[in-house]
Amino acid sequence: MSKVAVLSAGSWGTSFSVVLGDAGNDVVLWARRDEVAENINSKGENSEYLPGIELPPSVSATTDHEEALAGADVVVLTVPSQTLRDNLAEWTPAIPRDAVMVSLMKGVELGTLKRMSEVIAEVTDADPSRIAVVSGPNLAKEIARREPAASVVACEDEEVAKRLQALFHSPAFRPYTSVDVLGCELGGAYKNVVALAVGMAVGLGFGDNTTASVITRGLAETARLAMAQGANPLTLMGLAGLGDLVATCSSPLSRNRTFGEKLGQGMTTEQILASTRQVAEGAKSCKSLLDLARRTGVDAPIAEHVDAVVDGRMTATEMMDSFIARDTKAETD
Amino acid sequence: MSKVAVLSAGSWGTSFSVVLGDAGNDVVLWARRDEVAENINSKGENSEYLPGIELPPSVSATTDHEEALAGADVVVLTVPSQTLRDNLAEWTPAIPRDAVMVSLMKGVELGTLKRMSEVIAEVTDADPSRIAVVSGPNLAKEIARREPAASVVACEDEEVAKRLQALFHSPAFRPYTSVDVLGCELGGAYKNVVALAVGMAVGLGFGDNTTASVITRGLAETARLAMAQGANPLTLMGLAGLGDLVATCSSPLSRNRTFGEKLGQGMTTEQILASTRQVAEGAKSCKSLLDLARRTGVDAPIAEHVDAVVDGRMTATEMMDSFIARDTKAETD
Repeated sequence: MSKVAVLSAGSWGTSFSVVLGDAGNDVVLWARRDEVAENINSKGENSEYLPGIELPPSVSATTDHEEALAGADVVVLTVPSQTLRDNLAEWTPAIPRDAVMVSLMKGVELGTLKRMSEVIAEVTDADPSRIAVVSGPNLAKEIARREPAASVVACEDEEVAKRLQALFHSPAFRPYTSVDVLGCELGGAYKNVVALAVGMAVGLGFGDNTTASVITRGLAETARLAMAQGANPLTLMGLAGLGDLVATCSSPLSRNRTFGEKLGQGMTTEQILASTRQVAEGAKSCKSLLDLARRTGVDAPIAEHVDAVVDGRMTATEMMDSFIARDTKAETD
Repeated sequence: MSKVAVLSAGSWGTSFSVVLGDAGNDVVLWARRDEVAENINSKGENSEYLPGIELPPSVSATTDHEEALAGADVVVLTVPSQTLRDNLAEWTPAIPRDAVMVSLMKGVELGTLKRMSEVIAEVTDADPSRIAVVSGPNLAKEIARREPAASVVACEDEEVAKRLQALFHSPAFRPYTSVDVLGCELGGAYKNVVALAVGMAVGLGFGDNTTASVITRGLAETARLAMAQGANPLTLMGLAGLGDLVATCSSPLSRNRTFGEKLGQGMTTEQILASTRQVAEGAKSCKSLLDLARRTGVDAPIAEHVDAVVDGRMTATEMMDSFIARDTKAETD
C-alpha cells in the first residue's frame, strides 16, 4: 500500500483521490481551509467541491502540509497554475527526497512560459524521473462518479510511468503510459484555449459543424506548437490531446467552454469574473501559450483571436468572422 | 455559371444544392418520386427531407435523370452506398463525357469492399481526374440553415480540386482542397462505425469522458487502416477525419449515433429497423470496413465490437466491458 499526498482538495484533486483510494492507496488530501478537511474526515465527503460523492475510507484530509507530505511515496499536485511556484517553495522542504511528484495541472506560467513540470523541476531541483503528469479526457465529476475513463500517465522515465500506472489503476480508471511529458502538458494547456473558442461559437448560436471545425483547427494548432517543441505527434492524436480536447469541448461542465459561451453572448471578461468565483484556466494561459508560439515561430491564430476577445480588443462575432474569412487553399498548407 | 446535376434529392443532396445555388451554380436535382420534384419546383422547398428551408431560385428538380444530366459540368452523387453501383449503371450513358463526378457518399460496398470513388471509376470507366469527393463536418440540416461550415474537396488531380473548390464556395460554406481521396473516404466511412459505438456508450448512460475516449480510439483505428492503405495521416487529423467524426458523434441529429443509442438501450437491430425508416449507414458499412481491416492486416477492435452488437452476437454492455478490460500498456502500442 502506497501513501499518496494530494495537494489540494479542490474538485479535481478530490476526484483523483477517489481513483487513488479505489486503487488501494492510502491517501491524504491537503485542504487550505479547516472546514473542508473536517468535512472530509467526519463525513467522508467534500461537500463543497464534490457534493454527494462518498470518498473511499482510505482517504483522509489535513490542513497541515507537513502532515500530508510525511512519508509520501507519491505527491499529487493540483493547484492553480499561476500559484504553483509559490506553493511549491513553501512545500518543498517537506516533500520526501524520493517521492515522485505528479502534476494534474494544465497551464503555462505567465512570464516564464514554463510548463508545470518545468516549474516543479526548477523549484524542487528534482530529476525528471521524479516528475510525472496525468492528462486525458477526465472531467472531474464523471471520474468522481466512477464512470469508466482512460488517461495518460507520462514520465520521461518509462519505469516510473509503469509504476504509477499500477498505483493509479482502479476498476473505473485506466491509465496508459507515455514518456512524452511535453506533449501531454501542451495538449492539456492548449485545450483550454480551444474550449474558450468553442464556447464562443456556441454562445453565438452556431451548431456542431462549426464547433467540430474549431476543434479540428485547434488540435492542428496545438500539434504544430507541440511538435515544434519536440513532442510526439501521436500524443496529440491520443487521449491527452484529442481525447481531453473533445471531452472538454463537449461538456457543459467545462469552465473554459462556459466562460467562452458567456464571451460569445457578449459579456466582457470583467463581467464574467464578477459573476462567478470559478477561474477559467484558458483565459490566463492563452497569453502564455501565444507568447510560447511566437517565441517558437509557430502560427497560432486561435490563441491570438481568443486572447484578443478575452482582453476586449475584439468581439466574439468579429473573431468568428475573421476565422471564416481566413484565406486558405489546401487543407494542410 | 456551371450546370450541376445532383442525384438524388434526399436530405444531404438537397442541403448541398443550397450550397451550390448560393455559390452561383445552375442546379438540377434528380428526385426518385414525382411529389418531391413537384414540391421543389412549385414551392422552392423539399418539404419531405428539408422542411422550412427555402431553396435558391437556381435550384430546380426533375424525376428524369437524362434531363438532370444533360449538359452537366459537374455530377454530384448521393445515394445509399449499397445501391450506387446499380444506379450508376443506369445513369452512366447519360453522364456527359467530360463531367466531373463528385461523391458525397460515405460507405464501402459490401462484398467488393470498394470505396465509392472506386465504384464510380469501375462502372463509368472515368479517369481519376474526373472523380472527386466532398467530406467534412457537414451535418445536412446545419448546412441547409447556412451556418458557417468548412469541408474538404478531394481529387487526385489538384487542378480539378481547385476548380471544384471555386464552384462550391458559398458565403457560408468553405471548401479546402486535398488530393487524398482515399483518406477522405475512409475517414467518412469509418466515422459512422465510431458514431455507433459512441451512441452505445450514450445509450448506456456514460458521459463525456467515455465518449471522448471512444472517439480518440476510433480515430486511431481509422488512421491505422487508412495509413496502411496509403492515406496521408494529416487527412485523418483534418476536417474529413477528426472534424467529421466529432460533428457526427456530438450531434443528436446523427442517424448513426441515434442508432447506437438505441442499441445501447437494449433494442436489437431488427427492432430499431422496424421502428424507423432511416437507415444507419454504419450498421451496414462496419462489416465491409472490418473485412477491409482484416484483408489489410490491421487491428480493428471498434469495428469488430460494433459489428458483433449490430449482429446481436454481443450486447452493448458486454462491448463496453470488453473495451475497458482490454489489456494495454503504452498508449501508442
